[in-house]
Amino acid sequence: MVSDAIKKQLCAIVGAENVLDADLDRFGYSYDSSFVPLIPPNKPDLVVRPMTTAEVAAVMALAHANTIPVTPRGAASGRTGGCIPLAGGISLALDRMTRILEIDEQNMLVTAEPGVRTIDLYNACAAKDLFYPPDPASWKFSTIGGNVAENAGGMRAVKYGVTNNYVMGLEVVLADGTVINTGGKALKNVTGYNLTGLFTGSEGTLGVITKVLLRLIPMPKMRNTLQLMFPALDNACLTIHKMLQSGVTPAAAELMDQTSIQAVARHRHLVIDPAIEACVVIEIDGEDTESLEKQAHQIEAIAHSFGVAEVRIAASVQEAEDIWSIRRGLSSAIGAMAPNRFGEDISVPRNEFPAVMRRIREVAAKYNLCIAVYGHAGDGNLHPSVLCDLSRPEEAERVHQAIDEIFAAALDAGGTLSGEHGIGITKKGYIANALGNAGVNTLKTIKQSLDPKGILNPGKIW
Amino acid sequence: MVSDAIKKQLCAIVGAENVLDADLDRFGYSYDSSFVPLIPPNKPDLVVRPMTTAEVAAVMALAHANTIPVTPRGAASGRTGGCIPLAGGISLALDRMTRILEIDEQNMLVTAEPGVRTIDLYNACAAKDLFYPPDPASWKFSTIGGNVAENAGGMRAVKYGVTNNYVMGLEVVLADGTVINTGGKALKNVTGYNLTGLFTGSEGTLGVITKVLLRLIPMPKMRNTLQLMFPALDNACLTIHKMLQSGVTPAAAELMDQTSIQAVARHRHLVIDPAIEACVVIEIDGEDTESLEKQAHQIEAIAHSFGVAEVRIAASVQEAEDIWSIRRGLSSAIGAMAPNRFGEDISVPRNEFPAVMRRIREVAAKYNLCIAVYGHAGDGNLHPSVLCDLSRPEEAERVHQAIDEIFAAALDAGGTLSGEHGIGITKKGYIANALGNAGVNTLKTIKQSLDPKGILNPGKIW
Repeated sequence: MVSDAIKKQLCAIVGAENVLDADLDRFGYSYDSSFVPLIPPNKPDLVVRPMTTAEVAAVMALAHANTIPVTPRGAASGRTGGCIPLAGGISLALDRMTRILEIDEQNMLVTAEPGVRTIDLYNACAAKDLFYPPDPASWKFSTIGGNVAENAGGMRAVKYGVTNNYVMGLEVVLADGTVINTGGKALKNVTGYNLTGLFTGSEGTLGVITKVLLRLIPMPKMRNTLQLMFPALDNACLTIHKMLQSGVTPAAAELMDQTSIQAVARHRHLVIDPAIEACVVIEIDGEDTESLEKQAHQIEAIAHSFGVAEVRIAASVQEAEDIWSIRRGLSSAIGAMAPNRFGEDISVPRNEFPAVMRRIREVAAKYNLCIAVYGHAGDGNLHPSVLCDLSRPEEAERVHQAIDEIFAAALDAGGTLSGEHGIGITKKGYIANALGNAGVNTLKTIKQSLDPKGILNPGKIW
Repeated sequence: MVSDAIKKQLCAIVGAENVLDADLDRFGYSYDSSFVPLIPPNKPDLVVRPMTTAEVAAVMALAHANTIPVTPRGAASGRTGGCIPLAGGISLALDRMTRILEIDEQNMLVTAEPGVRTIDLYNACAAKDLFYPPDPASWKFSTIGGNVAENAGGMRAVKYGVTNNYVMGLEVVLADGTVINTGGKALKNVTGYNLTGLFTGSEGTLGVITKVLLRLIPMPKMRNTLQLMFPALDNACLTIHKMLQSGVTPAAAELMDQTSIQAVARHRHLVIDPAIEACVVIEIDGEDTESLEKQAHQIEAIAHSFGVAEVRIAASVQEAEDIWSIRRGLSSAIGAMAPNRFGEDISVPRNEFPAVMRRIREVAAKYNLCIAVYGHAGDGNLHPSVLCDLSRPEEAERVHQAIDEIFAAALDAGGTLSGEHGIGITKKGYIANALGNAGVNTLKTIKQSLDPKGILNPGKIW
């Protein structure tokens, strides 16, 4: 428990109105967007909402001196429990640090505080014809600090990479309150270890990110969308493969399996041919109409060589929106199919995508479960959703066995536990399978060196 | 000194023929390609040449148990003393680990041992129409392990990034002989901290890289070269800027100042108009002739708007080679101008490039020195070469003052000490200026945690 004396000091740092300790507030900061909530809830002792780096540093120095756990929190849109204050202590909410500090048009860079919503950052840059590509599904509510802490991915990763590929520098408050700056505006920078890369994706366990410097690229002038319907799942995967190897790199290449397609059909009262095994949605972009037409025709030709049943090339922005709305509505449509759902996030070498999809279907059959699979086929990142009713203990047991087998399938294929959601709480039981004990020990060694008292986001990753 | 008993154990691990301790051998392993050699030479006690990861692990375990310094060594092509065994002990030469283990065409990945020469790796991939873009100037003799350890850059960074952007995974032997694997073949991977990024660019101080997994991309189908001659240096820089902001991203955009141009002219008996202040060499690539022509015309139009004196678009592969040979011959041409040369490697935000070039000219005037400047203007990475005669102590003093001011200029402009050469020995005196004491302490903390006895490449970075 945080003592009254400490609470008084925290109030002096951030203002009494920014230290919350009512039970309802504490409850509100006890969960994130993980698929299955932890019961009973893990309430923080206090919620602290700093406004400046100096305030974050003072909070950390105080927490460090008194060995109080601190769990940083963005928009709580994470899927793996990253911001859940497992050990109580302080929930450090960064939702008041919402300024975009600079858009440097000449160097194509943006500097922002961690609480800026990803979509607001995107729009502010887009208004200057600059493009911040990473687009996690949560981008309308997630914040950039959380995106960096989790190394968020998204649909555009196949062409543009993930958050990590855009982080040029960070301001970080370490566990003891020390403020450091990593990286900078120079594109090439090999001065010292790559701390920017180390803190990116460290899930709030190594430091609190208080400022991010991100690289931007020129906004592509034109975009278009294609929808491909395949009678055979394998051929859908092969089409994506062949396309990438031919040098046609789409901005996004999403795949939905039959279960996913039919879930959307039910949800939106559409009729989709039950013989269709896979739907692929592709976004292409470029500098002019010719470039887009050329890409579309190349993709169409490849799809036909793999027996596509239907190719739809959007003829208008509205039609492109219609196609994407199916993909975007997928999570809700699948969620509506059962009382509970475990949405996983495995990532595999691209050529293993079809084999792993098949293996997941076998797992579904073996455990008599409905598992919808969709994902970012262009980069090998799959989201298998296990649908279930956890109020039935026997079913819950089968679900956990199925998830164990799905993770094993990813690792057997040379893949990993998480492509973009992080490890957090929900996957920590599996991390030694992925990294080996020596790998996990290396993570722990680094953690111990930077946070010797273990106050930053305790209980995560391993 | 390494005892006879240890030497015997090392011979048992790698074979007696792979443990060298003749004075001449030790001398041969005492230097790298830094511009100015350290005198007296820093000879290792022994040179050890392992063939396998297991041998590296056994050597490290033995060194760790006996607190013997180990300095890993690739091709010794580094410019900052990274592989010089400052503290004696073992020079761990990885030149026998030269196998390309796999080219995975489907996933566009290559796995190689550290001793593979960069150009051999490039060629093996190119034979399968796959492209490994990073091209440090040393790529004909440097090895991939060294490229990863230093996070090597090159001319293609402006479009394709540096080594770090291609490293997907590593096998690393830690200081105590533990072997870990980082990353993997999945394109998206957020399982645990980004150790791949941490070891890349760690200059042999955190672990010995024994295997690298690199991402490849499809080989561009066509390339061409442009040469632009400008009467005004600033306009050369503005042309590059404008081009990048218009969405025309060349594969390389190199700039040479007047001193550099005239050095080449003298060296190769060419006549170049003395009114030319800057020469820009641009490589463009793409999928077809139309794309190349379009890029060339856009660049030409921008260059004309900034008063270019001459635009040459190569009409043949031979002409492209001729243009590049000037840029490639630059280092030798400049080296021939004076008995000694300090070639620096500062990196600045792109828009600061002209201001920093001007500041370096002021420094040259102030200290009455000849400083040739060329570099990767597309990414803000400059190579100022201070030409001098170190046999004159008074001149040597001026040179060091000039270099201090060049580093200060880079930092004042929001840039950094090194874009691609690393810190090693030669820049360690400046690192606290770049990262601050808190930043350097963070590096030391991580180093201490992973190498508590400080046996790996001691004396480097700080």
